[in-house]
Amino acid sequence: MYSFSQLAEQVARAMAGLSFPQTPEMLYQPMRYALLSGGKHIRPVLLLMCADLFAQELEKKHVDLSLGVELFHCFTLIHDDIMDRASLRRGRPTVVSKWGVSAAILSGDAMLIEAYKLVCGAAGNAAVLDAFNRAATEVCEGQQLDVDFEQQPTITKDEYFAMVGKKTAALLAASAAMGALAASAGDADVRRLYDFAYKLGLAFQLQDDYLDAYANAAEFGKATGGDIAAGKKTFLFVSTVAALRGRERDDFLLLMQTTRLPTAEKVLQAKRFYAKANAQQLLKDAENTLFNAAMQSLAQVSAPRERKEHLERLALALLQRKT
Amino acid sequence: MYSFSQLAEQVARAMAGLSFPQTPEMLYQPMRYALLSGGKHIRPVLLLMCADLFAQELEKKHVDLSLGVELFHCFTLIHDDIMDRASLRRGRPTVVSKWGVSAAILSGDAMLIEAYKLVCGAAGNAAVLDAFNRAATEVCEGQQLDVDFEQQPTITKDEYFAMVGKKTAALLAASAAMGALAASAGDADVRRLYDFAYKLGLAFQLQDDYLDAYANAAEFGKATGGDIAAGKKTFLFVSTVAALRGRERDDFLLLMQTTRLPTAEKVLQAKRFYAKANAQQLLKDAENTLFNAAMQSLAQVSAPRERKEHLERLALALLQRKT
Repeated sequence: MYSFSQLAEQVARAMAGLSFPQTPEMLYQPMRYALLSGGKHIRPVLLLMCADLFAQELEKKHVDLSLGVELFHCFTLIHDDIMDRASLRRGRPTVVSKWGVSAAILSGDAMLIEAYKLVCGAAGNAAVLDAFNRAATEVCEGQQLDVDFEQQPTITKDEYFAMVGKKTAALLAASAAMGALAASAGDADVRRLYDFAYKLGLAFQLQDDYLDAYANAAEFGKATGGDIAAGKKTFLFVSTVAALRGRERDDFLLLMQTTRLPTAEKVLQAKRFYAKANAQQLLKDAENTLFNAAMQSLAQVSAPRERKEHLERLALALLQRKT
Repeated sequence: MYSFSQLAEQVARAMAGLSFPQTPEMLYQPMRYALLSGGKHIRPVLLLMCADLFAQELEKKHVDLSLGVELFHCFTLIHDDIMDRASLRRGRPTVVSKWGVSAAILSGDAMLIEAYKLVCGAAGNAAVLDAFNRAATEVCEGQQLDVDFEQQPTITKDEYFAMVGKKTAALLAASAAMGALAASAGDADVRRLYDFAYKLGLAFQLQDDYLDAYANAAEFGKATGGDIAAGKKTFLFVSTVAALRGRERDDFLLLMQTTRLPTAEKVLQAKRFYAKANAQQLLKDAENTLFNAAMQSLAQVSAPRERKEHLERLALALLQRKT
């Protein structure tokens, strides 16, 4: 069994081995930049860990699939940053802010095509491809819901979980399932690993919401409060709306829709409402519930406990992360 | 053998049979709109004609591949219209002008994913997929070159053909090759059909350049002169630059870069330079040369002459089109 750092190193080596043409420079330079932006490579490592549970040995096809999901993830970040008008990601300028909208659209498109080249070439069977295809569509649906929800004054918790389930959890779940499928795991184990990673993905998104409001900005690589400024419907938002009543709830919704306040002031006031609603604690409770459910799914996977230790550690690390 | 109209009808029926979820509405409504915009379905018909040359009978896999290339083409139109700030296509508002940038990016992304689902599901062998993958990347490269060239005062004819070869000819050529490959044609015939469609694709783009400047606007479905207004490097532009000398050449380049003139006036003046350079005739000459070369490639395909008649007629129709 390989540890997170061993697999992350393998992924990083394989990523460094990807080569793109030199020209058109405005197409391939943003792609190289986006791929070498020092992400955590959670999806490819998760895929490889799940393959490692069942395969005799990790093969090139597993690594290619893992790169495919990472490139897909990278494509979504490039395009999401256009829609979110984001200027920073992981402490560096986004592709759209560095090269403009056209280059960001096209380099994202080309990245999606590269992702499909890798996945189609390595899938081997229809089930692996189906899992990827399904998640690919769900991620687009989730991003569209996210954009739609920005325009709505409020949404329910169910709507929140439906959105982040597609936007964030689906690709993590598909990564786990693809790794297991490519290593010929049985259907029941594929489903359990899918469930494990799906619930973990929801918890991961809660941690994202948490960090966007409360992270140490220096560690975080970008300013906190971005979600509040953009009117994103985070878990902190939906649980605050659900907890407040009457005048206070109205004031909160009014605040979240205003464009008149300076960002810092809006963030400060929003966090006061979060505190009244005990939203931080509600988020941590929900995160723990999801984490425990994920662990239960993992426990049911038919592999010896000690073989699953790296997956447990990965899950824990995702929830304790500061960035 | 099936005629253009028989195959176009089959494609239209199959397209009408594609179904997408109802929600998120802002994702799937633009996709439906873009697919039902009454395009000519040249690429899927070309693919089916090339399959029909060698297959006993056209099968579902051929139709699925043909839909895949049409959906891919449709994805490129949605995203290109964002980059080109185009408000009309085929006489109707573009997706970006109707639903905005975010919805256009995402519905284009989801369309590309649907294209890959169809092509991967029906490819059957690696060669079909490789042909599609190669073209997919080339189309992105060609579009990037097109965007790059807008910023340059001038380009050479070689640069022009390299750009339109990728942006327009590559997908037509891949469609022909994919059809032949999926019907188990031999390598030599696949190559000849690729060459046929590639040269035809270049001629097709010349006709596009011609129509953008000289079409009957009512038949054309949008205003003429769009390429001149946008500073596009068309064949008319490059052959005018190549034909003019000294002061006249400088004046033309200056005119094409100006943003101060009203569009109608700029278009009028540009066309005067085109006339001096005899650019219309140069374009028609180049178009005929390419058309004849395409016909030569087709003639070498090892199938009886009468089986190739529909492809000949398709080629002719593409060059005589008014829209």
